Amino acid sequence: MSEISRAVRAYLATEHDRAIVAHTPEEMLTALGRVARAGSPEAVLRDYVGLHLATAPRLTARGYVGRQFSSVLPAAAALDALTAMAPQPASFFEVGPLPNAADKLIQREFQALLGWPEEAGRMITTTGGSLANLTALLAARNTRVGGSWKAGLAASGRRSAVALGADAHYSLDRAIGVLGLGTDQIVRLPLDARRRICPEGARRALDRARAEGLEVFCLVASAGSTSTGAIDPLADLAQLCAERGIWCHVDGAHAGAFLVSDRLRPRLAGIERVDSFCIDAHKTLFVPASCTLLFYRDRQAAGAAFAQKAAYVFSDPGGEIDVFESGGVNFECTKRPAILNLWLAWAMYGRGLFERKLDHLVQMTVLAAAMLRSQPDFTVHNDPDANILCFSHCPPGLPQAGRGAFQTELHAALLRDGRFFLSKTVLDGEPVLRLVVMNHALTRADLAALIDGIRRIAAQQISPPPLSLAI
Amino acid sequence: MSEISRAVRAYLATEHDRAIVAHTPEEMLTALGRVARAGSPEAVLRDYVGLHLATAPRLTARGYVGRQFSSVLPAAAALDALTAMAPQPASFFEVGPLPNAADKLIQREFQALLGWPEEAGRMITTTGGSLANLTALLAARNTRVGGSWKAGLAASGRRSAVALGADAHYSLDRAIGVLGLGTDQIVRLPLDARRRICPEGARRALDRARAEGLEVFCLVASAGSTSTGAIDPLADLAQLCAERGIWCHVDGAHAGAFLVSDRLRPRLAGIERVDSFCIDAHKTLFVPASCTLLFYRDRQAAGAAFAQKAAYVFSDPGGEIDVFESGGVNFECTKRPAILNLWLAWAMYGRGLFERKLDHLVQMTVLAAAMLRSQPDFTVHNDPDANILCFSHCPPGLPQAGRGAFQTELHAALLRDGRFFLSKTVLDGEPVLRLVVMNHALTRADLAALIDGIRRIAAQQISPPPLSLAI
Repeated sequence: MSEISRAVRAYLATEHDRAIVAHTPEEMLTALGRVARAGSPEAVLRDYVGLHLATAPRLTARGYVGRQFSSVLPAAAALDALTAMAPQPASFFEVGPLPNAADKLIQREFQALLGWPEEAGRMITTTGGSLANLTALLAARNTRVGGSWKAGLAASGRRSAVALGADAHYSLDRAIGVLGLGTDQIVRLPLDARRRICPEGARRALDRARAEGLEVFCLVASAGSTSTGAIDPLADLAQLCAERGIWCHVDGAHAGAFLVSDRLRPRLAGIERVDSFCIDAHKTLFVPASCTLLFYRDRQAAGAAFAQKAAYVFSDPGGEIDVFESGGVNFECTKRPAILNLWLAWAMYGRGLFERKLDHLVQMTVLAAAMLRSQPDFTVHNDPDANILCFSHCPPGLPQAGRGAFQTELHAALLRDGRFFLSKTVLDGEPVLRLVVMNHALTRADLAALIDGIRRIAAQQISPPPLSLAI
Repeated sequence: MSEISRAVRAYLATEHDRAIVAHTPEEMLTALGRVARAGSPEAVLRDYVGLHLATAPRLTARGYVGRQFSSVLPAAAALDALTAMAPQPASFFEVGPLPNAADKLIQREFQALLGWPEEAGRMITTTGGSLANLTALLAARNTRVGGSWKAGLAASGRRSAVALGADAHYSLDRAIGVLGLGTDQIVRLPLDARRRICPEGARRALDRARAEGLEVFCLVASAGSTSTGAIDPLADLAQLCAERGIWCHVDGAHAGAFLVSDRLRPRLAGIERVDSFCIDAHKTLFVPASCTLLFYRDRQAAGAAFAQKAAYVFSDPGGEIDVFESGGVNFECTKRPAILNLWLAWAMYGRGLFERKLDHLVQMTVLAAAMLRSQPDFTVHNDPDANILCFSHCPPGLPQAGRGAFQTELHAALLRDGRFFLSKTVLDGEPVLRLVVMNHALTRADLAALIDGIRRIAAQQISPPPLSLAI
C-alpha cells in the first residue's frame, strides 16, 4: 500500500509536460492484459497503478483546460478509501448515520447563503448532475402532471411539455425522453447574444407552445451552460414561471457552486426563488465524482419524485428517521456517501477554500478572453459568465469556409500532442475550441503558453514538418 | 494519512463485539458539529475518522447478517483513493481509457460463463442496481413501445404494461412510475410456495392482462428477490417471453453474481436467454459500492436506452471509440470508474476468489436454515435459493396473534443491543426477521451464537431485567 502512496505522491508532485496522452482502445486492452499477467497479486497492483497514472489526464498540468473535473483534497481521497473499507451507505440512516447527518449540515450552509429559512427547503445528494436533473424533472412531472405516476401518461390525454434553453445539457433532453413525455414536447427557448435564455423570447415561446396545445409544466434554466458557461437570467425566469404556475429548475451542475463565493453569488441572483436546482460538488469543490447536491425550495416537493415505500428498507413513513434519511427521495438504493467528502473539506478549511478557487478560475477565464481578443488570429465566442471560454484560431491565410473544420483538426492535433488539453463544442453549427479553467494554480504565464502552443501546433497542421529520413 | 491507515487497520483487525451501534439523528448532528470544531484541519480529519469507524456497521463482526453489502479488498479501497486523486471518468474514452477497456474485459469473462459468442452482447457498468433496472426497462420501452422516446407515451394511445413478480425490488415499481408507464400498468405475477414466479400463473396473468387491454412488453424476473433471495425459474420465463415477444429482464442485483461459481451457476439456468440482466458487484464481489453490471444479449439493444448525442462530449457516432465508450448507453455523464475495482480484483486473484466466497455464503445459509428448523421456537419461512433466510422467533407462550408484532419488537431490541445485526421484511403481510450471510468468515459456531443471542434478547423483551437501583 505504501508503494501506491509513494507513486501517487510522486505523480502529484511532478510538473507534467503533457496534460493528456491519447490512446486507442486496442492499446488499452493490450496494456490491461499485460498487467493481468504480471504474476503475484502485488505485482498486478503495482503495475496497474503505474498504468493508471500513465493514462489518466493530468489535472495539475499547466495545459489542462479540457474537462469539468479538477483536483481533489488528499483528505477526500483518503476518505474514499475509508468509506470503501468501512461503508456507510447513504440512503438509509440505520447503516449510514453520518452521511444523512452531513446532508443536513451542508444543506444548512447553503440555505444560509440562499437566505432560505432553516426549515424551508430540502437538499439531497445524488450521483451526478444528470441524475439530479432527472430527479428534479420527475418531481416536477409528478407534481404538475396529475396521475402521471400511477395512471401513467398515456391516460393523461395531454401534451405535457418542458421548456429548455437551446444550450441545455444533453441530460435534460434525455430526461424528457426517459420520463415518457416525448422529446417532441421540448419547447426550445431562444438565446440572446450572450447565449443566455432571453426572457422575452421565452415568454413568446411559451405563448406559442400554448397556442399549439402544449402544456408546459417545467422550465429549465442553466447556470451555466455546458458549452459556454452562460448563466441564464434566473430572476426573470423565476418570475415568468411563478406567473404561469410552471416549475422552474436550474441546472447549476457547473456554476451553481458560485453560491459559495461572495463575489460570484450575485451572478445567480434569483436562484433562491426557483423550485429546484442542482450543483455538482465534484466539478470545482475539491471532492471526487460523483457528488451532486439537489435542492428543493419546498421541502415537501422532494417527496414527490418517488411515491412508494418498501418494507425491508425504509423506516416508518413520516417518522423521525424517515424524514432524515434520503432513500425515499433519491434514485439510489445503496448509495456511496459522497457528501462526507464535501462536509469534511468544509469542516477542515471552511467556505473560503472553495471561494478562493472559484474566484481564481473565473478571473483567469476573463483574463484568457482578454488575452485571446488581443490576438488577431483568435476569435472569442463568448463573454465568460463562468470559467468556460469558446474560441477559434484562424491562422493567416485560412479560407473563411474552412474555419470550422480547421478547429476540429486542430483539436485532434492538440490531443495527439498532449501538452494542451482543450475540449471542443459546436456553436450555431460551427465547431469551436473550448477552454475550461479548472486548475486553481493556473497563471497568466500558463495562458500565454497555451496561446503560443495552440498557434505553433496549428502552424504544423498547415505545413507539417518535413519527414526525417533517419528512422 | 498514515494515522488514518493505522486507524483503519486497527479497526479491521478488531474482533467487534457489536455488529451495529444505533444512533439518533440528533446524536449524529451533534457529533459532526463537535468534529468540525476540533481545531486544525488535521485534528478535524483525525476526529472524523474516529467517529466514522465508531458509527459504521461492522461488516467483519460475527453478528453481521443484516444488509446486502460486505467487506472489500484492501486493494479496492486503495484504488478508490487512486481514482479520486487521478480520475479516469468512465463515460468517455478520451479521459477514461482504462475503465472503458476494463468494461470490455469483464464483459468477456462473463460472456464466456454465459456461453455467449464474444461479439454478441454488451455490458455496461452503472451506479447501482436501481439505475441498472431503470436503464434496462428504458431500453425495453424504447424498443417495444414505438415512439415512446420521441412522440411520448401520451401519443401512444396504448396501455403499455410491465409484469413483475410479487416480490420484485422496489426499484422496479419505481422504474415504471419514472418511465411514465404508470404503476397501474403493473401486472403482478403470482409466486409459488418457494416465492418464485410460477410460470403457469404468469402465463395466465399475461392472458388476463391482454384481455383487459394491457400490452405487456416487458417481464422482470428476480435472481434473487430482495426479501428471500428466491431465484425465479429463468428458463421457463425466458421461454414464455420469447413466445410472446416480450422483453425479459432479470434483476440479478443480488444473486446474478452466482455466474462466477461453477456450483451455483446452474441456479441461474436460462439467464443466458433473457434480453437483459444486472449484477451488483458491490454486494458480494469484494468491491465498494456502487458497481453494477448490466448485460444485454443483443449488443445493439444497449443503444436503445438513449437516443441522442451531444457535440461537446460524445465521439463520432458509430466510430471506433463511440462503440467502445459508455457515455451514450448509461445514465451517468461523469461516472466513477467502479469497474476498475472489479477488474483489479479479478486480475489479482482470479474468479476463484469470488467463487469461494459465494459458495461459502450459500452453504452457511443452508446450514442456518437447518439449524433454525431444528429449534422448536423458530420458524423458517423460505428454502434458501441464495444467501438470504427469513424466519421468526416465537418463544413459548407467545400468543399466535402477537407473533408478527413480536418480530418487529425483537428486531428493534436486536438493533439496540447491537451484537446481532439482522434486517426485517414483510412476507404475506407478516413481519419476519431476515438474515443475509455476507461475511465470508462466518462459521457454524457464529450461527449457533446468533440463534442463542436472539433467544436471550427475546427473553428480555418478554420479561425485562429488573432495573438496578444503583445509578
